[in-house]
Parts: sequence; C-alpha cells; structure tokens
Amino acid sequence: MSLTTEPDSRPRLKALRAEGVWQGQMKTRLQVRDFAPFYTGEPERVGGDDSAPTPMEYVVAALNGCVAVVVETVAAELGLRIDGMRIESEATMDRRGFLGTADVTPHFTQLTNRIRFTTTEQPERLEELQRQVVRRCPALNLVQDAGVPVTLDWSVEEVRAS
Amino acid sequence: MSLTTEPDSRPRLKALRAEGVWQGQMKTRLQVRDFAPFYTGEPERVGGDDSAPTPMEYVVAALNGCVAVVVETVAAELGLRIDGMRIESEATMDRRGFLGTADVTPHFTQLTNRIRFTTTEQPERLEELQRQVVRRCPALNLVQDAGVPVTLDWSVEEVRAS
Repeated sequence: MSLTTEPDSRPRLKALRAEGVWQGQMKTRLQVRDFAPFYTGEPERVGGDDSAPTPMEYVVAALNGCVAVVVETVAAELGLRIDGMRIESEATMDRRGFLGTADVTPHFTQLTNRIRFTTTEQPERLEELQRQVVRRCPALNLVQDAGVPVTLDWSVEEVRAS
Repeated sequence: MSLTTEPDSRPRLKALRAEGVWQGQMKTRLQVRDFAPFYTGEPERVGGDDSAPTPMEYVVAALNGCVAVVVETVAAELGLRIDGMRIESEATMDRRGFLGTADVTPHFTQLTNRIRFTTTEQPERLEELQRQVVRRCPALNLVQDAGVPVTLDWSVEEVRAS
C-alpha cells in the first residue's frame, strides 16, 4: 500500500477553461488562456455568416489533435518510431436533433477517424499502439462514451526509407 | 402520413470533416474546409511547446460556441430578446486516464457551463430557453451522453435599459 507500489492511487486533476463572448449572427469569440482568440460560426443557411468553422467541426478537429498526442505518447512508451501522421476525421449529424423536430441525438450519429502513418514499424506493432490509444485518448473516449459508433481506419501510407 | 404532417420523419444528415497533419512535439496543424489552419498543442510538462490550446481545451471552447448557437436559435423561436452573452466553461480531467495508470475516464470528470445574459427577459422565460438548449445542443449532449456530470450556472448579469 505504499506510494511506491501504487503511485497513481491519487487523482491527478487538471482544470480546463475557455471563455466566450457571443457576437450575434451565430458567431462566438473564444479564448483559452492567453492564446489568440478564435471564432466559431455557422453557415448562412442557419443564420450565420460562414466566417469560421462550426463548433462541432472544432470538436472533430480537436479529436484529430488529441489522437495525435496520444499516439505520440504511446509510441514513445512502446519504443515505436513514427515519422509522420496524416489524420482525418469525418462525422455525421442528423440536424433534426438540433432543430428539435425528432427524437434523435443532436450530436454525432457516427464518426470515422483515419490515420495514415509514415513509419517503418510493422503493422502488428501498430495494433498495440491503437489498442492503447483507444483506451487512453480523451476525445476519442468522449465520443465513444456518448454512444457514437466510431470507426478507426489506420494504416501505413508510406514506409520512409531508413 | 403525408410529408406535410410529418416533415421530419426523414433524417437530415450533415457531414463534418477535419484534416490534420502531426507536426511532432505534441502539435497538430488542423484544417476545416477552406478556413485558416489552426493548431493544437500541449504544455511543456507533457512534451509540447505550449504554443496553442490543447485539444480538450478546444472541445471546452467549442462547447461555449455551440451553446451560444442553440441559445440564439431557441431564443428566436420563443421570441426572447437576448442582447448579450458571456459564456465560460470549466472542466476537470484526471490525468491518470490519459497516462493509462488508473482505470478512470481519460476525458472530463465534470463540466460547468456558466452564462451571463444581458437581457430584459424575465427569469421564468429563460427557464424554457434552458430546457430546450439542454435537449438540443450538440456539444452539451455529447458531454452529457458521455456520462460527464454537467452543471449549468446561467443567470442574468445585466438588464439593458430598453
């Protein structure tokens, strides 16, 4: 029961925070810490000016960034060398959820995450990588835990000559 | 069974897509449609260069933008006048989930969303607004459906003289 044998029995809490000021016309100015502000917007079809990605597009993009962080972390732990990653996520929404006109989820009805790795590692070694990323990636687990069917399409695009 | 009486019996599917290219050092360059690219990063503590918000900070920020869109939409439907909104979300993560060192969720252990409205509307009318936003907001439902305890702290900050 010593801390040495159970070093992670205590929560390691981390706080996240973002501020926003609504600008009207479906647009919001957002700020995280001292970084440059950015905006979410909506297409003209729903009353926006189409000047920025939608909030849920930001979520899909953030998922790409999150998966990359966990891949980089787990690859280092496993001693895998990854030379490059192109990551693409696609999701589908049924707008009736947002419109309130049908009893369907307002968020994703499915999400597909594709990664094309540049690596000389063997596919079997990438399987263990994927297994751990699926278990540990915050954004991926948020979507999975929300009941969204998630498809992973990960493959080696290019084996860099070493 | 005519389309006139059941206009929303058919799914209204919308596709969302984001691309990313991993830059190394926990950083990813992200692109949505033709908008300017943006980056997710990580603090130096976990191997990043702290040059951009983390992926999960983007998720928290996107939630602010998403709630604003749905508030604006529902307020228009209900005939409520909202003159301003300041929106802040705070979430907590237990880093052991990401680290893989304990069997805890890698995403949010709680999330609080605060809105300060500038409006002359009575608080009772804002209750119906909140009820519908909670049901229809994509990002809020993603977090709620993932089992994250969500606290809403919405109040009128300023009643603009009309």
